[in-house]
Amino acid sequence: MAIQKLVIAGVGLIGGSLALALKEAGVARQIVGIGRSRGSLQHALALGVIDDIAESIESALADADIIVLAAPVAQTPVLLRAMAPHLRGGTIVTDAGSTKGDAVAAAYAALGADAWRFVPAHPIAGGELSGVDAAQAGLYRGKRAILCPLPENRPADVTCIEQMWCAAGALVKHMTAEQHDAVFAAVSHLPHILSYALVAQILDSSYADLKLDNAGAGFRDFTRIAASNPEMWRDICLANRAPLLGEIDGYMAMLQDMRRMLAAADGAALERVFSRASQARLDWGRQQEK
Amino acid sequence: MAIQKLVIAGVGLIGGSLALALKEAGVARQIVGIGRSRGSLQHALALGVIDDIAESIESALADADIIVLAAPVAQTPVLLRAMAPHLRGGTIVTDAGSTKGDAVAAAYAALGADAWRFVPAHPIAGGELSGVDAAQAGLYRGKRAILCPLPENRPADVTCIEQMWCAAGALVKHMTAEQHDAVFAAVSHLPHILSYALVAQILDSSYADLKLDNAGAGFRDFTRIAASNPEMWRDICLANRAPLLGEIDGYMAMLQDMRRMLAAADGAALERVFSRASQARLDWGRQQEK
Repeated sequence: MAIQKLVIAGVGLIGGSLALALKEAGVARQIVGIGRSRGSLQHALALGVIDDIAESIESALADADIIVLAAPVAQTPVLLRAMAPHLRGGTIVTDAGSTKGDAVAAAYAALGADAWRFVPAHPIAGGELSGVDAAQAGLYRGKRAILCPLPENRPADVTCIEQMWCAAGALVKHMTAEQHDAVFAAVSHLPHILSYALVAQILDSSYADLKLDNAGAGFRDFTRIAASNPEMWRDICLANRAPLLGEIDGYMAMLQDMRRMLAAADGAALERVFSRASQARLDWGRQQEK
Repeated sequence: MAIQKLVIAGVGLIGGSLALALKEAGVARQIVGIGRSRGSLQHALALGVIDDIAESIESALADADIIVLAAPVAQTPVLLRAMAPHLRGGTIVTDAGSTKGDAVAAAYAALGADAWRFVPAHPIAGGELSGVDAAQAGLYRGKRAILCPLPENRPADVTCIEQMWCAAGALVKHMTAEQHDAVFAAVSHLPHILSYALVAQILDSSYADLKLDNAGAGFRDFTRIAASNPEMWRDICLANRAPLLGEIDGYMAMLQDMRRMLAAADGAALERVFSRASQARLDWGRQQEK
């Protein structure tokens, strides 16, 4: 594949790493950055992550083959509304956000009859770092990129976005936006909420300093994601609010059950839950190593 | 220090690693194992972790300098009752359990006027592995060993147990049993419950397979402790039941607050909780690196 002009809106860890990967793969001729902060874009240009800074949305979008929305997810509707009047020819718009239902809704609202241009995507990579300084060409290598195509998408456009992520080293998978949001509410967004909640609760409790001072490897791993960017996770949680509320409710019911077993000193029941979870986690770990 | 005869009750990861560390440090002349399974003890002997297998509790305890209880914590009262009639001279009894209030109560109940012999201890090491095959001389190196001395303990005996853990490479800290149990309920036992609960909830939910198939690094770290030994954690949770129930209640209240913020789409309130937790976790990480 060859991309003549790629526009990245929001050149941080996610957008910057995609730019570096596509440059390394030699598939993007020109990469143009747009964003809210001119200083950040100049920094990305100085680092060689992008080739140009667009002077306006209109000039950025002229002749663009692909536009990747890589800003925080709360920006997606704003960006799509600003871009809508300037989309021409066969330009494809895609995103890299952690939630898909909201992105799809924003695309229908902002693009209307042009919604066929929008191919929703989510590369599963990141970590607790953020910003263009953390960007690296290998971020997506061996990781998944989930595509949630719309019925309106042209098959050739979906293939084009697939090829872009393949060129960045990712493994492309398809699912519906509804499946995507339920899946990531459960395995990503809820764990972030739970991890933030544990640290917040300890801070408010008695012996808080003694607790933190004596926390070990279990706490370290459990709370690694609590060091994540608060603004980004606020936006992800709000964007995926309905599925996430469902997962929180399911989780609280499970925790309430386990509390009841503990209060009743029902060791057999507790062990059944622990064993089932432990076996599933061991199986999952083995599966991941393959 | 020099230990002429050290008895280890329960030669698994914890007891076996202590034996290997004290052998390597050259401070234990004879290490005798006792336990429920003769096969496990023979395996520990074949691995060179212990020097002898005791034929009876009575013969094990004769002339013992130190007895270390390293079996699952539910065994502590049983072991102390069985040992009580055979304790003689200056023999010190200590343990390595993850909960201290229950161990102290068991010592008072089983040893009565002999409770001065019991020096409660908890080395902070382990991980998701268990069994003597996972034992290693370096397990305690640079890790903490918490001592919760009783008013009845002879200062020289407390010093002796301190020196034993120092010889194994650990850093000794003192706190009360009540502080200990609150601290580890919060930073260790509760995270285990929460991690088991997440995996259990996913197993029972819709798209369970798709969720596990798409779980990434955040899930991996958050649920690493859900692979822990179910029987061991059942016993730890039961042994530390009252403080743990308190921590679960505090956690559910925090989670309920965060759910309310999310349901109300109160991004500012969510971000405040996330930011505070994130900053505390970053600070904690930096402190750990020192």
